[in-house]
Amino acid sequence: MGGSLALALRDYADTITGVDADEVTRTYAVEHGIVDYATDDLRAGVSEADVVILAAPVRVIAEMLRRRIGSYLRSNTLLIDIGSTKQDICSAMAELPIGIQAVGGHPMTGKEQSGIEASAADLYRGRPFVLCPTRRTTPAARLRALSLVRALEAVPIEMEAERHDHVVAAISHLPYLLSAALVATVGREGQKDDAVWQLAAGGFRDMSRLAGSDVQMMGDILSTNTQAVATLLALFRMQLALLEAMLISRDDQNLAETLYPLREARLNWMERYMNGANDGNK
Amino acid sequence: MGGSLALALRDYADTITGVDADEVTRTYAVEHGIVDYATDDLRAGVSEADVVILAAPVRVIAEMLRRRIGSYLRSNTLLIDIGSTKQDICSAMAELPIGIQAVGGHPMTGKEQSGIEASAADLYRGRPFVLCPTRRTTPAARLRALSLVRALEAVPIEMEAERHDHVVAAISHLPYLLSAALVATVGREGQKDDAVWQLAAGGFRDMSRLAGSDVQMMGDILSTNTQAVATLLALFRMQLALLEAMLISRDDQNLAETLYPLREARLNWMERYMNGANDGNK
Repeated sequence: MGGSLALALRDYADTITGVDADEVTRTYAVEHGIVDYATDDLRAGVSEADVVILAAPVRVIAEMLRRRIGSYLRSNTLLIDIGSTKQDICSAMAELPIGIQAVGGHPMTGKEQSGIEASAADLYRGRPFVLCPTRRTTPAARLRALSLVRALEAVPIEMEAERHDHVVAAISHLPYLLSAALVATVGREGQKDDAVWQLAAGGFRDMSRLAGSDVQMMGDILSTNTQAVATLLALFRMQLALLEAMLISRDDQNLAETLYPLREARLNWMERYMNGANDGNK
Repeated sequence: MGGSLALALRDYADTITGVDADEVTRTYAVEHGIVDYATDDLRAGVSEADVVILAAPVRVIAEMLRRRIGSYLRSNTLLIDIGSTKQDICSAMAELPIGIQAVGGHPMTGKEQSGIEASAADLYRGRPFVLCPTRRTTPAARLRALSLVRALEAVPIEMEAERHDHVVAAISHLPYLLSAALVATVGREGQKDDAVWQLAAGGFRDMSRLAGSDVQMMGDILSTNTQAVATLLALFRMQLALLEAMLISRDDQNLAETLYPLREARLNWMERYMNGANDGNK
């Protein structure tokens, strides 16, 4: 994600410095022209910067904000992050020294591959990029953040951190937990009967993909969004119970009438927001 | 599915007759050499056949078996179906006239597109094809069914109908209900805040795909497999509750230790059964 940011900001920035603890990553980034300079020294990397973008797991970003980075930055530096939950990070940004211009960020994109080798300049193009105001977001900081998002050719969407976290709990964190619980359920059946694994096909492949996500990253996300995720879990259980009641009572008519609009909602969403991409169920 | 069967059996069968109520489908199938003859008259289509394959939604197949087809077939005809649940159909096969050789079938494959235009000779190649014995499966019938599956270049897997239905409840019907309940949950949030739809991305796309499935087909499947689906729903709820308890009690360590093996199980399954296909989470 950070490498793709650097590539996409090539024309926007005079000089790009990458900060990474891993030497192989740093060497790769410089040799491939992804960044101009690379260092493992956070202070050296950010102290002269006009704009600093934090690309790391959520709890790493929150810790950087709470422990160190505020004292390293010049006044008027624009500080943005791209962490997947925003309340924790925006609270930490609120405690930064006055003069630092901090805005919470979350680009709604991702690549299937991660790592510096997967960097792509067009990763953000046309995708939503959420910006969340903090107590350190001046009107000027907001405009600078908007201009940066537009340089990525992303679509800026401004909202409060709390609203963001509720939305992503619904569309991202709840789906992850469902995928993990499905794999746990299927896995137990698979221990009793290997045919379970053997017969699983495309439906299971799609529904289990998120369970293969990076565990540390997802752990960070879930633990910084517990309340919204618990709320969405409760709402989900209600919807699942409704379907189950119709199924068990053999109320086929009602079940079909409930399932049709869900099918429509899914197809409409694909049409409106996934550029009408056809993944089969059209 | 039926068109693909016909294409794949081109060398296996001397003559292939397609039976379909839709004239456009029949014309297309004949003009494109998918079948030799086509008719909308079930009796005429099957009465001289050596092998009859029923490709229709589950309840349509069960009804054909119960109402009509037994009296149309010659003795010693091999009758196979490709319905997605097997107990109902195999029970109906058991009541066929003695002399008819009936075997339940379920190929674990599918195309994203349906309809006669989507017919593909290689649809079944390398995929599991479940065969379920019935009271009308003689040893000779079993061998004929195995030979037919091998002609499709599919992998025959023999099991009792009850075991089949339990397995597919886990890997297919439960995932469908989860997908539908997720879309219901997200849809309600989306009514309150359009940002929900706007920000939804790849994770939601994968997890919602099954909710876009054909409702009549899924309704048939669920209503003929209610008990196994209810069992799997109960097991799923337990797994989800375990994850939720760790999350709410902020037991990050335990949560991560639970999520890691689920990630591994998913990656191992992809490696073993999806030919190591890489869909990103490797």
